[in-house]
Amino acid sequence: MNDPGFVLWFTGLSGSGKTTIAVELEKVLLERDLRVQRLDGDIVRKTFTRDLGFSVDDRNLNIERITFVTTLLAKHGVATLVSFISPFIAARETARKEANGENAPFIEVFVNASVEECARRDVKGLYEKAFAGIIKDFTGVSHPYEAPPNPQIICNTEDETVEESIKIIIAYLEKEKLIPNSS
Amino acid sequence: MNDPGFVLWFTGLSGSGKTTIAVELEKVLLERDLRVQRLDGDIVRKTFTRDLGFSVDDRNLNIERITFVTTLLAKHGVATLVSFISPFIAARETARKEANGENAPFIEVFVNASVEECARRDVKGLYEKAFAGIIKDFTGVSHPYEAPPNPQIICNTEDETVEESIKIIIAYLEKEKLIPNSS
Repeated sequence: MNDPGFVLWFTGLSGSGKTTIAVELEKVLLERDLRVQRLDGDIVRKTFTRDLGFSVDDRNLNIERITFVTTLLAKHGVATLVSFISPFIAARETARKEANGENAPFIEVFVNASVEECARRDVKGLYEKAFAGIIKDFTGVSHPYEAPPNPQIICNTEDETVEESIKIIIAYLEKEKLIPNSS
Repeated sequence: MNDPGFVLWFTGLSGSGKTTIAVELEKVLLERDLRVQRLDGDIVRKTFTRDLGFSVDDRNLNIERITFVTTLLAKHGVATLVSFISPFIAARETARKEANGENAPFIEVFVNASVEECARRDVKGLYEKAFAGIIKDFTGVSHPYEAPPNPQIICNTEDETVEESIKIIIAYLEKEKLIPNSS
């Protein structure tokens, strides 16, 4: 009955830096004694969305289930960090509505890097396979990505370091009184 | 970082009284200022398990997803009340292991009433259809139910009122120091 929970929803292309930022941010928030839960594809697809593929329907179902979980966590005062490509505006807006319906703020963070830059990084070697047609339905290559028209926060990871991105996010959370100010 | 979360897992036949008890217990726990989340089939099958039917595989997948959610909630200090038929010992033991893995106690409540009694109540008119073969794979009629060999709590709803069942559960939670004693 104390901390205000919230959903911090990172959206962006594969390799844009969503999880990298979320992992580092989690450490900062834990240091401030907040209850924090991080969710990403690696965590979730092992267990409760492991039946899903990457078609439009499956992606929507994936995000729908994530939404169910994040809403419950945020409702109960957990700082919930969610990093999924989540390519569709409509699915993200549903997630926002559900969270807001439980009086939990929903903060959309657009982790912005071009397909070219993400392909250059190609952290998991996925872009090479996508361009070669070995992986189909790959967001940004053979599957659409709908960028947020009005995200609360933008992290331009082509130009800023992880530390800089985190500073921007922390400043936002402090300004909105979602986390206590650092002393 | 304050309340200890826990999972209170109600298992039993359809119509045994799981949700009735959970709904009343939720009120009592909310009055004690605890963070409480109730989950049951009606809540969950509308959303994040709506793709699932009632085959053995689907029932296991249903419980697996519930387990994912309850574990996260309990980990973050939420008193999580779960009422599902959950007919299989193995699935419930997995739920216990996951919760315990996050240092959250898992309390199995066997809501015990005979098939005959549940059929007599037949709250949702399901037993009639199950006996007529209109509903297939119905637990206790045409599908097995594995009663817990060692539940932490037994509610014999053929002999006790809802109030009596709740007193037993509250006494257990107080004894285990999972909720503050009533003043």
